[in-house]
Amino acid sequence: MNGKTRSESRSVMTEMVLPNDTNLIGNLLGGRLLHWIDIAGALAATRHAGRVVATVCLDAVDFRVPIHMGDLVELQSFVTWTGNTSMETEVHVYAAAAGQEKRLIDTARLVFVAVDDHGGKYPVPPLISETPEESADYSAGAERQRLRKKRNISE
Amino acid sequence: MNGKTRSESRSVMTEMVLPNDTNLIGNLLGGRLLHWIDIAGALAATRHAGRVVATVCLDAVDFRVPIHMGDLVELQSFVTWTGNTSMETEVHVYAAAAGQEKRLIDTARLVFVAVDDHGGKYPVPPLISETPEESADYSAGAERQRLRKKRNISE
Amino acid sequence: MNGKTRSESRSVMTEMVLPNDTNLIGNLLGGRLLHWIDIAGALAATRHAGRVVATVCLDAVDFRVPIHMGDLVELQSFVTWTGNTSMETEVHVYAAAAGQEKRLIDTARLVFVAVDDHGGKYPVPPLISETPEESADYSAGAERQRLRKKRNISE
Amino acid sequence: MNGKTRSESRSVMTEMVLPNDTNLIGNLLGGRLLHWIDIAGALAATRHAGRVVATVCLDAVDFRVPIHMGDLVELQSFVTWTGNTSMETEVHVYAAAAGQEKRLIDTARLVFVAVDDHGGKYPVPPLISETPEESADYSAGAERQRLRKKRNISE
Amino acid sequence: MNGKTRSESRSVMTEMVLPNDTNLIGNLLGGRLLHWIDIAGALAATRHAGRVVATVCLDAVDFRVPIHMGDLVELQSFVTWTGNTSMETEVHVYAAAAGQEKRLIDTARLVFVAVDDHGGKYPVPPLISETPEESADYSAGAERQRLRKKRNISE
Amino acid sequence: MNGKTRSESRSVMTEMVLPNDTNLIGNLLGGRLLHWIDIAGALAATRHAGRVVATVCLDAVDFRVPIHMGDLVELQSFVTWTGNTSMETEVHVYAAAAGQEKRLIDTARLVFVAVDDHGGKYPVPPLISETPEESADYSAGAERQRLRKKRNISE
Repeated sequence: MNGKTRSESRSVMTEMVLPNDTNLIGNLLGGRLLHWIDIAGALAATRHAGRVVATVCLDAVDFRVPIHMGDLVELQSFVTWTGNTSMETEVHVYAAAAGQEKRLIDTARLVFVAVDDHGGKYPVPPLISETPEESADYSAGAERQRLRKKRNISE
Repeated sequence: MNGKTRSESRSVMTEMVLPNDTNLIGNLLGGRLLHWIDIAGALAATRHAGRVVATVCLDAVDFRVPIHMGDLVELQSFVTWTGNTSMETEVHVYAAAAGQEKRLIDTARLVFVAVDDHGGKYPVPPLISETPEESADYSAGAERQRLRKKRNISE
Repeated sequence: MNGKTRSESRSVMTEMVLPNDTNLIGNLLGGRLLHWIDIAGALAATRHAGRVVATVCLDAVDFRVPIHMGDLVELQSFVTWTGNTSMETEVHVYAAAAGQEKRLIDTARLVFVAVDDHGGKYPVPPLISETPEESADYSAGAERQRLRKKRNISE
Repeated sequence: MNGKTRSESRSVMTEMVLPNDTNLIGNLLGGRLLHWIDIAGALAATRHAGRVVATVCLDAVDFRVPIHMGDLVELQSFVTWTGNTSMETEVHVYAAAAGQEKRLIDTARLVFVAVDDHGGKYPVPPLISETPEESADYSAGAERQRLRKKRNISE
Repeated sequence: MNGKTRSESRSVMTEMVLPNDTNLIGNLLGGRLLHWIDIAGALAATRHAGRVVATVCLDAVDFRVPIHMGDLVELQSFVTWTGNTSMETEVHVYAAAAGQEKRLIDTARLVFVAVDDHGGKYPVPPLISETPEESADYSAGAERQRLRKKRNISE
Repeated sequence: MNGKTRSESRSVMTEMVLPNDTNLIGNLLGGRLLHWIDIAGALAATRHAGRVVATVCLDAVDFRVPIHMGDLVELQSFVTWTGNTSMETEVHVYAAAAGQEKRLIDTARLVFVAVDDHGGKYPVPPLISETPEESADYSAGAERQRLRKKRNISE
């Protein structure tokens, strides 16, 4: 199977914060943002794998600043590491009020696998690093994956 | 401010998995489940604080088994630790196909703060532990919060 | 077929009233509440029957007090009577503004049948009454069902 | 206040049954239909009152035949009786599969009041009957309203 | 195949503008109205063809006046011209604030074809004109279709 | 007011086609795509104007090929011409099944104005053309706008 580069999975998603996305004081609901983060990660993983993907895990996410009704939220995503059947994706969340510069608000990482109708997993193309920074990310991703396998969230 | 017990914040939410909640092979989208987990946590935190709350962070979540179209998903949530203005909530996710026993699928932890319209934070009632298990959870929650403050997700 | 108790069908559903659930003056739309009531009843009936269920009828519902944006709405449901293929469910609707005690707002009753893909009906497990109150409810349910069969709504 | 005729409140609403409106076996969810019935009644009451309205009650509804994914559902509604501040509306539900004649499936009656932001009720225009049939409906509506006031649903 | 008249395809759809349908200043989003216009056209085309239909094109649409939250939007649609497999539909958009007369806001034209699961097109019944005005519309529709085939939007 | 370049308004939006976005044979509803096209155009116009915008018109749109459930739809948008208060935007719609190359499916043009709460229009920054191709687009946009003002859609 031929490898793919990070740029081949790179995806951009933009959402406008509508009334139903907000709580009583007009701030974006955390759950809505989590939903968008998962879709953004899935877009990148789907492009890398060329198949339907399923979310395996989401690393911890911090919501640093509130996002407001009417803001534009841009989610950039790409694959940072691949195992045999797993793909780690990184999602950068930017937000901007109308007329303001967009700012990086949150970063999230999710792992996906490519799946078929019967729950089987497919091998995914290896990720080809094109820059020293991408290589470093790849190694860090492998280390994060090693730690994910050791953690036991329910304890 | 008078304290509150865990049982005063305990909340239950049940969702039936509809077609739009699923991917092409009929499994619940990870993002939809994350959305429900955030709402479940917010229900418990709102009941504890008696105010509008905002999500501060979500700890890592593992999606261990797929949930299918038509399944009933039950989310149980309660407050496990409180600081001055922060509340840690735990969400237990159960799923059951029609005619099957429900099974614990996932566990998630989120931190919330009580907020006002201008972004200010309110003090929240202290959590009163009623059993040794709740006390142990409380201490573990304090330790988890200490670690959250040290982590730097974007690195 | 083994009988089931009321507690085996008992279900809880909690919803937060979002902007799109409300009319121009910020009160929960009656239709949205009816939708939730039907789902709550279906949760209990699905748990009792162990199968997909379809709504057969809804008894009259009074909306006694308005529910407001941001309120938590809790719907408790359980099976109160069973015939050969029919199940009567009762839904209790509670609402609470943040920081307020929840209050019982409405009560609704719906009848469901268990169905297959071709429109056929399945026998459902008999309901086992465990207390004198549940027995009285069961008898009252049988009487209500007798009256439902006699009514002709379109006249 | 000048009276209004039934034809001035007559409203038509058509919905196409989409996947998310259906259960696992492709039939329209009862709750979705109840939601549409309430909106249809509210359309007629809003046109009669010329104000925001709130649902006061829904009489019993029977779901006689299943409605399927892809069907067209047409809801016709109009005001049948008015009191000082109350309006009774009748909703006729028709359904048709593509290429089939539409059939009357269900009939529902709801009572609405015209409201302001502070929960106050407004007087509504009297309903002018234009045919003997409308006069008979009006008298029957007055009698139904008398019975609604006597019923106590929670008993 | 027997022909059908314009009145056989005539459809009415009414929507109440909810918070999530509006932008930050409370006006109906253009995209939500376009969505409703397409559904309204599809209702008429489905009734004419008696089959599932697909949108082929939408002619230019002008949004002349803003529509506000809480307004009632009524969409009337009917078939104005038929080819062998194509149907031209016209959609009239009316809007009314509570207590106001409805006004014609926009007019739109869409072309649909009747389709099967494999992308094939079905012949549709010829449209029977019943009045001189309908005949004139039919001829104008044929001319519009001739121009549509010549236009090349992407240039 | 300082001008802005095309690249400053360039926006990307990606959507995954879910069950509720499709008709009975699994193809994306035209109305859902129109909704996305309007949002994509509004994203570019909002970025250019730095204010809330309202849709003034949509030029004719052809739906050349069906888009299927599960496909990824990418919408790229940017401003092509500006008047005193009007902005013309162009939206390119790409679609790709999982594992396929994305293809340009449709092109659409919409005009927006920047608005305030009272319906007033704001002047918008002039568009700065950076290449001969952008200059040619700009001139063509001015000519298209001249023709839009002359057309009378309702005739």
